[in-house]
Amino acid sequence: MDSKDDKPDVSCSSPVCVHNPHLDALTDDILYHFSLGTGTHNLPAMFGDVKFVCVGGSPWRMKSFTEYIAAELGMEDPKSEYPNICAGTDRYAMYKVGPVLSVSHGMGIPSIAIMLHELIKLLHHARCTDVTIIRIGTSGGIGLEPGTVVVTKQSVDATFLPKFEQVILGKTVARDTDLDQSLAEELLQCSKELNQFETVIGNTMCTLDFYEGQARLDGAFCSYTEKDKQEYLSKAKDARVCNIEMESSAFAAMCKMSGLRAAVVCVTLLDRLKGDQLTSSHEVLVNYQQRPQILVGYYIKKQLKAKAAGN
Amino acid sequence: MDSKDDKPDVSCSSPVCVHNPHLDALTDDILYHFSLGTGTHNLPAMFGDVKFVCVGGSPWRMKSFTEYIAAELGMEDPKSEYPNICAGTDRYAMYKVGPVLSVSHGMGIPSIAIMLHELIKLLHHARCTDVTIIRIGTSGGIGLEPGTVVVTKQSVDATFLPKFEQVILGKTVARDTDLDQSLAEELLQCSKELNQFETVIGNTMCTLDFYEGQARLDGAFCSYTEKDKQEYLSKAKDARVCNIEMESSAFAAMCKMSGLRAAVVCVTLLDRLKGDQLTSSHEVLVNYQQRPQILVGYYIKKQLKAKAAGN
Repeated sequence: MDSKDDKPDVSCSSPVCVHNPHLDALTDDILYHFSLGTGTHNLPAMFGDVKFVCVGGSPWRMKSFTEYIAAELGMEDPKSEYPNICAGTDRYAMYKVGPVLSVSHGMGIPSIAIMLHELIKLLHHARCTDVTIIRIGTSGGIGLEPGTVVVTKQSVDATFLPKFEQVILGKTVARDTDLDQSLAEELLQCSKELNQFETVIGNTMCTLDFYEGQARLDGAFCSYTEKDKQEYLSKAKDARVCNIEMESSAFAAMCKMSGLRAAVVCVTLLDRLKGDQLTSSHEVLVNYQQRPQILVGYYIKKQLKAKAAGN
Repeated sequence: MDSKDDKPDVSCSSPVCVHNPHLDALTDDILYHFSLGTGTHNLPAMFGDVKFVCVGGSPWRMKSFTEYIAAELGMEDPKSEYPNICAGTDRYAMYKVGPVLSVSHGMGIPSIAIMLHELIKLLHHARCTDVTIIRIGTSGGIGLEPGTVVVTKQSVDATFLPKFEQVILGKTVARDTDLDQSLAEELLQCSKELNQFETVIGNTMCTLDFYEGQARLDGAFCSYTEKDKQEYLSKAKDARVCNIEMESSAFAAMCKMSGLRAAVVCVTLLDRLKGDQLTSSHEVLVNYQQRPQILVGYYIKKQLKAKAAGN
């Protein structure tokens, strides 16, 4: 596994780190939920050139992002065929065009955590360096016009604290949820250059539930009043929470641990101070969902152009 | 929404309960992650006859379950076409044959919780009564031969306590994870009659993570030793934990609150005391995954036969 024969270490490049001494003892490493593995696939050949990874909940959206970025980079497949690299499973979908990998992660922290464990191992086994990873998603906004894009400054939990708690061997462990601030600023600058939609930098609240966990009044169960809801969301606003979603804290913590430069870019589909249900038309919601793709596509194109000019 | 004009209450039948006074104020209820709603779909006509709901993580498996149950009940579509009722979204997949609804829920508590909020509202709006719901899934076993089927007695958390904790308005709320014991016993009896594979009743540990959360040594991160892992799994075994998965606690808690008769039936894909990676062949794993389907299919067929004989 992971022989380091043919590629010398470049001192200025940043690898993707695993922190697990047990991995060296594995003859093969099976990335079960990707239906990939070191014994069955040549991961360095398949993924060694990856520099950008974009992840999002929906497999359809990640496929559409791949088609979009291929066109943006002038790397379209003439047949417009982008095979799902994880075709052997229905847990996640994965697409690649040039240096850009696009992976779905499902909904919620557990689902994105499984994906990230296997993605980080994949990038490590493939000996990728200098990888930037961006989550492009949807969210509920707080006090923002629907369609506003939020680049996350800090991911906070449901008590507005910047930490990701998980239980390891029955004990609670808290991890930092810092994201790359310079990357967030670069993305904001890209949005200014694009000038197509409003983009802000702010805190993102990450919850374990979409209904009661986000103070919605429209779940199967609800034991609080409209006033309770508004008070909770007001407190969130006071803590500079701009939007609410369900994956950013695990994403921030795990990317930080592995040395990945990471950002979270989510569009707000509604203003939660004004409602809970997604009543906008399908067309409007589709338009909103394209905004993080457009912003991140512009950023990747700009980075690749700058790199080509620098070489 | 939800007019009660044409269907009289039958005193001995058990409805599917929502506990949310705010729902009555909604003109339409949009079940966003199903791409269904009370304003756009006639839910009583589409789902009013549902008596059994089977849920599982993988959309492919839930489609295959529908094909299997259709054949078992002699209700095959001559064209073998079972359309995905949630075709307007890629979040969940849903299939129906006669009184049996089959729904995917993705991986992890947040993903199954979103699905269950919308499923419970759907069954309520459709005025379903006397519904039995069974999760058919996969799991890691503790001290069991791989391929053993576990019917859950009690779902416990990562500290082996029978509760589901969630954060509502920033405060932690604990809910019971009781499942229907008579249903579990009936399923065990069915397995004896089938006599095709080993089935046991035991506790199921539900975790928020597949790697560090389940003491695996093969994630991207691992800060404990093989000895630490074995000690933790031994403690789980002492607490009568037979298997580990990622959805049962939210499933048990939410089904109990809504008055659904519920069971969890998971096959063990490996013995976690002996390893972490899923190294069995694809064919063996596929065979194992069919076992909960076969058991639940047998149970449903038996129930329908008994009901037909009683009428």
